[in-house]
Amino acid sequence: MDMLWSGWGDPAKAAPLPETVTGLLRDLLGVKPRGTERLGLDDVPVPASPLDAAALRALSAAVGGDPHVRTDAEARIRHTRGKSTPDLLRIRAGDLSDVPAAVVLPAGHDDVLAVLRVCAEHRLAAVPFGGGTSVVGGLAPARRGPFVAVDLRRMDRLTAVDPVSRTATLQPGLRAPDAERLLAEHGFTLGHFPQSFEWATIGGFAAARSSGQASAGYGRFDDMVLGLTLATPEGTVEVGRAPRSAAGPDLRQLILGSEGAFGVITSVTVRVRPRPRVRRYEGWHFASFEEGGAALRRLAQDGPRPTVLRLSDETETLIGLAQPDAIGADGPRQNAGCLAIVGHEGTEEDTAHRAERAGAVLRDAGGTYAGTEPGERWAHGRYSAPYLRDALLDAGAFAETLETAAFWSRIPRLYASVRDALTTALTEAGTPPLVMCHISHVYENGASLYFTVVSAQGDDPVAHWTPAKEAANEAILAAGGTISHHHGVGTDHRDWYVREAGPLAVEALRAVKRRLDPDHLLNPGVLLPTD
Amino acid sequence: MDMLWSGWGDPAKAAPLPETVTGLLRDLLGVKPRGTERLGLDDVPVPASPLDAAALRALSAAVGGDPHVRTDAEARIRHTRGKSTPDLLRIRAGDLSDVPAAVVLPAGHDDVLAVLRVCAEHRLAAVPFGGGTSVVGGLAPARRGPFVAVDLRRMDRLTAVDPVSRTATLQPGLRAPDAERLLAEHGFTLGHFPQSFEWATIGGFAAARSSGQASAGYGRFDDMVLGLTLATPEGTVEVGRAPRSAAGPDLRQLILGSEGAFGVITSVTVRVRPRPRVRRYEGWHFASFEEGGAALRRLAQDGPRPTVLRLSDETETLIGLAQPDAIGADGPRQNAGCLAIVGHEGTEEDTAHRAERAGAVLRDAGGTYAGTEPGERWAHGRYSAPYLRDALLDAGAFAETLETAAFWSRIPRLYASVRDALTTALTEAGTPPLVMCHISHVYENGASLYFTVVSAQGDDPVAHWTPAKEAANEAILAAGGTISHHHGVGTDHRDWYVREAGPLAVEALRAVKRRLDPDHLLNPGVLLPTD
Repeated sequence: MDMLWSGWGDPAKAAPLPETVTGLLRDLLGVKPRGTERLGLDDVPVPASPLDAAALRALSAAVGGDPHVRTDAEARIRHTRGKSTPDLLRIRAGDLSDVPAAVVLPAGHDDVLAVLRVCAEHRLAAVPFGGGTSVVGGLAPARRGPFVAVDLRRMDRLTAVDPVSRTATLQPGLRAPDAERLLAEHGFTLGHFPQSFEWATIGGFAAARSSGQASAGYGRFDDMVLGLTLATPEGTVEVGRAPRSAAGPDLRQLILGSEGAFGVITSVTVRVRPRPRVRRYEGWHFASFEEGGAALRRLAQDGPRPTVLRLSDETETLIGLAQPDAIGADGPRQNAGCLAIVGHEGTEEDTAHRAERAGAVLRDAGGTYAGTEPGERWAHGRYSAPYLRDALLDAGAFAETLETAAFWSRIPRLYASVRDALTTALTEAGTPPLVMCHISHVYENGASLYFTVVSAQGDDPVAHWTPAKEAANEAILAAGGTISHHHGVGTDHRDWYVREAGPLAVEALRAVKRRLDPDHLLNPGVLLPTD
Repeated sequence: MDMLWSGWGDPAKAAPLPETVTGLLRDLLGVKPRGTERLGLDDVPVPASPLDAAALRALSAAVGGDPHVRTDAEARIRHTRGKSTPDLLRIRAGDLSDVPAAVVLPAGHDDVLAVLRVCAEHRLAAVPFGGGTSVVGGLAPARRGPFVAVDLRRMDRLTAVDPVSRTATLQPGLRAPDAERLLAEHGFTLGHFPQSFEWATIGGFAAARSSGQASAGYGRFDDMVLGLTLATPEGTVEVGRAPRSAAGPDLRQLILGSEGAFGVITSVTVRVRPRPRVRRYEGWHFASFEEGGAALRRLAQDGPRPTVLRLSDETETLIGLAQPDAIGADGPRQNAGCLAIVGHEGTEEDTAHRAERAGAVLRDAGGTYAGTEPGERWAHGRYSAPYLRDALLDAGAFAETLETAAFWSRIPRLYASVRDALTTALTEAGTPPLVMCHISHVYENGASLYFTVVSAQGDDPVAHWTPAKEAANEAILAAGGTISHHHGVGTDHRDWYVREAGPLAVEALRAVKRRLDPDHLLNPGVLLPTD
C-alpha cells in the first residue's frame, strides 16, 4: 500500500477532528476553516520528465527492466519531498518544483552500484528513498538539475539471522512492521518504534540516526547497528566485524547519519532481542515539568531503566497530546500538572521487579501513580499524531514539530528559550501558537526535548513558519542543544548543522564525500553544503 | 615518577620470578637464562638531535620556554616507542632508530596548535605522547625524518564537573589514577580500569579506543566519551553538544580511535558515575572454556550484567595467569577447568540483588561458585601482568599478548585458529609456546579474546615473533575477527587494518587526514599508510 501522497499514512485511517477540538482551535488560536478544496492526485500538474531515452534505457538495464523505472506522474508525485508540514503544504498546493525525473527501483546492492554509474554518466543526482518520511527536507536535493529517486522497496528481505550472536541482517527497503514480523518468526524483536514506525524503513533509520519511543530500553537505532554495507559511486564499503573494536575510528558511526550523502545503505546488520513476554505501560503525574524531569533523570542515571520513559509538559498534558487518540473524547481526565509515561517490557519476573523499583523512585521524586490506563492510551495512539496533523491542516490550523537534545544541566534553559522563540515569532506574525513539549528520550547525561506547535495557518503558512523555525534553531544553538536529536539534518537544518559541527569538521566530512562521491551525485545539498 | 625506560611501570615494583616458575619455564618451554647483562640508561647510545637552533627556538616559543623542550638523552630515550614486547627487546638492545628529535611539553590547547605550526614550518612530524603505553607501535612513526614527541603531561587537570549531567571534562595528559582521585573528590568515578591503568592517560584512552576491565558494567572508554576537542594543523575541531544527536555522523567516533593521525586530543568530556559503595568480586569454575563462554554469553545477553566478567581458558587457568600476583605461590589451588571472574559494583542493595541473580544464571549454566578469594586475588593482581612480563624477559623467556573480538557465533573458530596459528608458527621457529587465552570483554552480540604467548626467546626473539604475530593476524581476519579489540592499530596492525576496513573506507579516512593534516605531520604511518 502507498502512503497518502498529500499527507500521512493509510488514507483509510484519516479522520476529521472532533467538534470539541475545532471549537478549541477557533476559540484559543483563531483558526478559521480553509476555504479551498483539496487537490486530487490527478489535478497536480507534473512537468514532463527531463530524462532522455538513453538515460532511461541505461537505468532500466541497471535495475532489471522497464517496470522498475517509473516516470509516470503518480510515481513522481509520490516521491516528491518528505512529510514535514511545509512539505505537505507545498504538495497540497501543487508545488512540484522538487519532483524527481524518475523513480528507479533496484533489487539489490549491485543494482544500486549500477544505478550510481548511470547517474554519473548521465549527470543525474540520486536521492535514496526508503519510507519517504523525512521531515527535514532530506528528499529534496538542492542541486538545480534532474535527479532520480532511488526507491529501495524491492530490497525488503531479512537476509540472515544469527540466534547465537543475536544479530539479524536486513535490507534497507524493509519497513519496520515487516522487519518486526520477520524477526518475530525467529522469536526476536528489534525494539525500534519511532512515530514513523508504520512507514519508515531500515535504511532510513540508519541514514538518519533514528531514535524510537522505546529507546530507554532498546537504545537508539544507531546503538543497534553492528554492520553496514554502503554502495557509493566509487565502490562498496562494508563495516562491522565485531560488536566493538579498537581498529581505528568506528566507521559505522560515520555512515550512520550520513543521510544518503556518502552512499546508499544496502544492508544493515542489527542487534536483536528476544520478544518481551510482558508489557506494562503506566501513567505517572507530577506537579511540574521540572519535578517530572528530575524524576526521569533519576531513573536514567541510577535506574532501574524503564523501556519507555516520556514526560509531557503542562501544556501538552492539558491538551492531552500524549494520548492523541483520546483528544476531544468525553469523560473525566487528570490533566493538571505533567503526565509521564513509564513502560516496562521483558520477562514477567524482571518487569515486575523493575516496575516496583522504578515506582519507588518515581514516588520518592514526587510522582503520583495514575494506573496503566494513561500508558495503554499512549501505546494505542503512539503512531497517531501525524494523522492528527493532517486533520489539523484540513481544519485550517498549522501544526509542526521539532526536537533537540542537550546535557541535563542545560535542559531548563533550552526548554524555556525554544518555547519563547516559537511563541514570540509566531505571535509577531499574527498567529499566536500553542507550544507543547515532551521529554521523549533520556540518557544518563541528558535528554531530548520534542516540541509541537499549533497555530492558525495565516495567509501563507510556510512564510509564517519559516522565521519561527529559524528562531527556534537559533535558540537551540544558543542554549547549547543539538540541532536535531532524531529527525536529522536534511536541507532544513543544514545551515545550523554547519554551525554546530564547525567549519573544520564540516570540511572533513566534505572530504569524505568528495572521495566517495566525486561527482556530487548523492543527495546534493542534504546534510552538507554543495561547493 | 617516570616509568621504567626498558620495561614496565615503577622500577621499585619489579620482582624476579619465583623459582617454581623458572623451573616450569625451563622444563616446559626450554627457556634458558639470558647470558647478557642489561644495559643501563646511560649506556644507550643516543644520536645527536637533528633539530637546528631555529626549530628549537620556535618550539620553545610555542610551549612557553626552554624547560619545556627537551633534547637530552634521557628524555629522548624515554619517548622512544611504546611497551610492546618487541619495543622492550629493541630498547633493551640499545636500538634507538625510532628516537624523537625532541620532546615538547605543551601546557594547553593553544600550545599544541602552536607546536603543530612549528612542525609544519620546520618539516617535523609530531607524535602525541600520553602514558607511552602503546603496544602496537603507535609511537613509532613510519616517516623517515625527524619527529618530535608531544608529551601531554602538563595538561593534567580536571577542568569541569557537571554533577547534574554527571559529566567531567579532563585534559589529555591526566593519568587514570589521578583522574580517579580528582573525580573521587566530587563523589564520582570514571570506571575505566585497563591493565595500563597506572600509567595510561585520558588522551591515550580516547585516541586508542581503550577498553577497561570493568567494561561489562561501565562500558568501553569510547562509550564514556561525550565531547572532544582536537587540535589539528588546520585548526580546532570541537564535538559533543548532547549525549546523542541525529545531526550527521557521530564525529566523536571519528576522532576516537584516530590514534593521533587526525590531530592531538586536547580535551575529553566523559560520563562519570557515583563511586560504588560495594565491590564484590567472585570466582566461578566451569568444566570447559565452551561451557564458561556460554555462561558469560547468557549474562551478557539476558543479564544481570556484572561489572567485571572474564573467563580464562583451561591453559590460562592451569597456569594461574588470572591471578598473576599468586603465580608460583604455594598452597592448594583449584586449577582444573576454567576460572571466571565475576565482579559486581554499586549500591549495597543492587549489588546483592545482581550477585544473587547472576549466581543463579551461572549455576544453571554449569558454574561452581569458588568464593570471593579468586576474585580478590584477581583484583589485587589486575595491573601486575606487565611486571610479570619484564621478569619473564629477564629470565630468558619471550612473552607477548594480542587480542581480537568477534560476534559470539564466530568465537569458537576464532579461538581455535588464533591458538593454532601461534602454536604452529612458534613451534616451527623452534620455540614451542604456551598459548593462553581469556574472554576479557563481553557484549550482547560478541566478545573479545585476549591471548598471552610465552616461549623461549630463541636467538633473535623479535625475528621469532614477527611471523607468529603475522600468522595470528591472518587467522584473525580469516575467522572474521577484528584486528584489535582494545590495543589499537598503530604501525604493527596497520596492514591488516587496511584489509579489515577495505580500500575505499581507508581512502575515506585518508581524505579526512589530508584535510586536517595536509603536510602529513601527525603520526605518519600510524593507523593509515603514508602516501
